[in-house]
Amino acid sequence: MAQNKEPLVLRDMGSFHIGGRLAEISGKPVREVAIGGATQKLDPNGSYLVEQMYVQYVLPQNRKGKVPLLMWHGGGFTGVTYESTPDGREGWLNMFVRKGWDVYVSDAVERGRAGWAMPEVFEGEPVFLTVNVPWTAWRFGDPGTWDPDPAKRRPYPGSQFPVEVYDNLLKQLVPRWTTTNKPIMAAYNQLVDKVCPCVLLVHSQSSTFGYEAALANPDKVKALVIVEGTIRGNAQTVAKLKNVPILVLYGDNVDRSPMFSGQRKSNMEMAALAKAAGGSIEIVNLPEVGIKGNTHFMMMEKNNAEIADVIQKWLVGKGLVD
Amino acid sequence: MAQNKEPLVLRDMGSFHIGGRLAEISGKPVREVAIGGATQKLDPNGSYLVEQMYVQYVLPQNRKGKVPLLMWHGGGFTGVTYESTPDGREGWLNMFVRKGWDVYVSDAVERGRAGWAMPEVFEGEPVFLTVNVPWTAWRFGDPGTWDPDPAKRRPYPGSQFPVEVYDNLLKQLVPRWTTTNKPIMAAYNQLVDKVCPCVLLVHSQSSTFGYEAALANPDKVKALVIVEGTIRGNAQTVAKLKNVPILVLYGDNVDRSPMFSGQRKSNMEMAALAKAAGGSIEIVNLPEVGIKGNTHFMMMEKNNAEIADVIQKWLVGKGLVD
Repeated sequence: MAQNKEPLVLRDMGSFHIGGRLAEISGKPVREVAIGGATQKLDPNGSYLVEQMYVQYVLPQNRKGKVPLLMWHGGGFTGVTYESTPDGREGWLNMFVRKGWDVYVSDAVERGRAGWAMPEVFEGEPVFLTVNVPWTAWRFGDPGTWDPDPAKRRPYPGSQFPVEVYDNLLKQLVPRWTTTNKPIMAAYNQLVDKVCPCVLLVHSQSSTFGYEAALANPDKVKALVIVEGTIRGNAQTVAKLKNVPILVLYGDNVDRSPMFSGQRKSNMEMAALAKAAGGSIEIVNLPEVGIKGNTHFMMMEKNNAEIADVIQKWLVGKGLVD
Repeated sequence: MAQNKEPLVLRDMGSFHIGGRLAEISGKPVREVAIGGATQKLDPNGSYLVEQMYVQYVLPQNRKGKVPLLMWHGGGFTGVTYESTPDGREGWLNMFVRKGWDVYVSDAVERGRAGWAMPEVFEGEPVFLTVNVPWTAWRFGDPGTWDPDPAKRRPYPGSQFPVEVYDNLLKQLVPRWTTTNKPIMAAYNQLVDKVCPCVLLVHSQSSTFGYEAALANPDKVKALVIVEGTIRGNAQTVAKLKNVPILVLYGDNVDRSPMFSGQRKSNMEMAALAKAAGGSIEIVNLPEVGIKGNTHFMMMEKNNAEIADVIQKWLVGKGLVD
């Protein structure tokens, strides 16, 4: 699996959980469960630790980023977003470590190694996605072009996504709730308290969390890189973030998606507000700088190194790299 | 967080998902879900990818282990078991990479970054554990000695577990089903097919999966290290595994637990059968070799490096280290 001959030299790597609270459950009947061949009585009443978040860190020996780089995943995903690509190449975690950044990748509350809580704590049911939904929703191809047979899938021309291993993207999906923004945000804020000043790199759903984290800590978030996500703000928020430069990246075929083109239009309005307030929101449409064929998952596509370089160049320009 | 001055030099690190199958859901009503501020219709009927497993790999530049070392977690846990300890020191993942092993840590089907499936696929309800259950079940202290206040907890004398950060162990817990052994085993077998010959290091629940994997691939599993787990076999299975050396480690205070002392007694019977068949199951009670105070979670306790050395020495003795 090693395609890069240069070794990764780390001064440390590890993980921790952060956040969480005690929740009390009462009034439920005792269950009988079969574990390891023996039936045991399980009293579900009592205290549970819930709503913690998982964070892994990879710290290069030769550090060049002036602050840590935190990578937050999108809805239905985990930190795996930034690990190896679906076709087994290096993802942005390794790439930015190689560029000299201390990288912290997290699994938000309810996702992956963060764990998730019982119905008494998490309201409503989680969302699971059928195999064809991501294909259209995240701009792999037009409706009707997905097929269970990889050879029959018809992505947009020049797609950078390795569609023959689309299943490997689906395997990264985990169930998500739509009612858990508050605990997710609480844990992210604790992470920012612990490891920042920093740069936040956010994707899709986590753009909301990244922007809120910056608003809560405008002195600690030195820059915000948004990969295809919405900026939910107004004249007040852009004023508060006038010293936090923001880069927003969009892939190809955005005009074909009402959702993404609407989101981008709203972001452009925010960029105008930011400019008027003395701040900076730069929106880069990758096709306009010659980088074509990317979907919503540019961090794991064939040209992911080229896009990492776009981000790195921007961070260098902001004075965040030694 | 870096306490070890020697850098970790890796020839690669990354992750992948393996296994999984398509499941069809039909006959369910369309749901309305609020995502990102907008209500969307979600048709839950269709094909889903389910029952895949997550695997991360960390490969040292200076490889000394003759085969990869696969680390499988116990019930209710994920691969985080082998990452940083609850008190922030290095875990066995880093330690065995430093010893020159290619290490593969996985999150089994349904756990962590493997994701989990809907009730139509996973039978029954998952198990959540209240904060006090692990304290007694996994031999931190006698019943009644756990207290929400860390200062008031009364562990067994000389406990190696950092009880002041017991909460950090609880945060590693994820919900578990008790009905999913078959898909878990199927994915583990695919992993063995992909990356072995290898050594398996298993904990608690995964001892069953490790033993079954060895039975399915007695030529590929070169050794099996069981940290406090049951060997479910008989005269036939020990004969089949006569060329697969097995080491079983037990911590302290086993006699205080009917569950663990019963399990150990059963393992000793298996060891006698193995010996009669020309095989080898070695059961090491750590207190008998001067290593005292360990609970069921010896890989994350204060003396975890000392216990890693016990395992390493055994693996060297089996000719598995260059």
